[in-house]
Amino acid sequence: MNSTQIRISYADTDQMGMVYYGNYLTYFERGRTEWLRELGFDYKSVEARGLYLPVLHAECNYHAPAKYDDIITIETKLTNITAASMTFNCQVKANGKLLVSGSTKLTMVNASFKPVRIPADIKSILEQNLES
Amino acid sequence: MNSTQIRISYADTDQMGMVYYGNYLTYFERGRTEWLRELGFDYKSVEARGLYLPVLHAECNYHAPAKYDDIITIETKLTNITAASMTFNCQVKANGKLLVSGSTKLTMVNASFKPVRIPADIKSILEQNLES
Amino acid sequence: MNSTQIRISYADTDQMGMVYYGNYLTYFERGRTEWLRELGFDYKSVEARGLYLPVLHAECNYHAPAKYDDIITIETKLTNITAASMTFNCQVKANGKLLVSGSTKLTMVNASFKPVRIPADIKSILEQNLES
Amino acid sequence: MNSTQIRISYADTDQMGMVYYGNYLTYFERGRTEWLRELGFDYKSVEARGLYLPVLHAECNYHAPAKYDDIITIETKLTNITAASMTFNCQVKANGKLLVSGSTKLTMVNASFKPVRIPADIKSILEQNLES
Repeated sequence: MNSTQIRISYADTDQMGMVYYGNYLTYFERGRTEWLRELGFDYKSVEARGLYLPVLHAECNYHAPAKYDDIITIETKLTNITAASMTFNCQVKANGKLLVSGSTKLTMVNASFKPVRIPADIKSILEQNLES
Repeated sequence: MNSTQIRISYADTDQMGMVYYGNYLTYFERGRTEWLRELGFDYKSVEARGLYLPVLHAECNYHAPAKYDDIITIETKLTNITAASMTFNCQVKANGKLLVSGSTKLTMVNASFKPVRIPADIKSILEQNLES
Repeated sequence: MNSTQIRISYADTDQMGMVYYGNYLTYFERGRTEWLRELGFDYKSVEARGLYLPVLHAECNYHAPAKYDDIITIETKLTNITAASMTFNCQVKANGKLLVSGSTKLTMVNASFKPVRIPADIKSILEQNLES
Repeated sequence: MNSTQIRISYADTDQMGMVYYGNYLTYFERGRTEWLRELGFDYKSVEARGLYLPVLHAECNYHAPAKYDDIITIETKLTNITAASMTFNCQVKANGKLLVSGSTKLTMVNASFKPVRIPADIKSILEQNLES
């Protein structure tokens, strides 16, 4: 599991005085990126190999709102892998309290956006870091 | 069902050359807003009564990407109502092709963010416009 | 001058109950895009020729805030052209009242992001539509 | 001068493969917020006193683009104060290279959005930290 902290900007709030619901998908992205980086490779280097990871499915459950200036913790773990896809679970917390939980499923594609098998070197690292 | 069109801004794209996955939740919001307006009341007037509709759950399935300058059609219908919540289904299309489908469940709260029963006048309109 | 209308999303508001100041640059983009389209070519076709128009300078003066659900009018005119750049003035209004005025200066570059002369066919259209 | 670092999200890029021009205003906001925090008070506490700091004027000069996953440094200093306003200069850098420079002028208003004099305790801290 990777744990990453970010501070909520004014830009991310809405007139309900809390973070706009769509912005959590950006926090989920940040969590996935840091999860990958912690394993020794970064998503930028994946794109440099002509591979991309568009999102197939995303889901958010909103328990309590993040507010302006909160430091949120984004906890990310990899929960499933197939030949061409991976699924991450994500929990956004502040002050130890769960705010939003969810998941994203990504698929690996080539530059023509055709699904491709995840290369063996990446798959091996993913498999070693799969959590249930 | 409400059908609303918007044009994709450059701001909404990412370096994969397509709309960033989180932005569809903004399009879903726009669809819900126009669905309500079509029934003769607007969300702004709901807030003017001290009632709010934060999102409890959101889900997106990404079939094909929207691109810069596309005119997308957002089709929205209400598929469920409970005492305090409502669920909308949403389909984003371009040129007749389904790009993204999903749903959002919202709950009605008061100014203290406590769930409250949907007022009878609003509930009556919702019930008359429930689709399966 | 091009005049384009858009409706303010909840996503664009912040906890001050008005549009977040950075979002006007997205509205300015939309105004420039529609200005170009009105002249019979679109920015997408410029990129298809391997030419890009990154922004060199942007400026906003905030007179009054746009609010959620407002229909804003974005008035755009081209006020200057040089060999490689163009400057647009922009006024955002609602209900006839000026909310935000500003300008953006863009420069034409090639796929290597080197400044290039604006092609004669585009420059000719621009020159015919220059306003002071 | 305050110096704050943030990492660029995929969400902040556009299809030109760089940060969308409007997003720098969010980075400027973040720089101002951290500048204030470094002086021992935070903007959240300003709002808790019923005071707000909407932006009157913003300006950006784009020298070179920030890219996905870059760690940018936002350098912020206060360059002017009047009875009700303050002006911040901002420089966004990566790897020691200047990417974007600009400024924002904010005005202090009360809950009715009427300009008010900056309270003496805040003004005193600002004046001690004015740079040219």
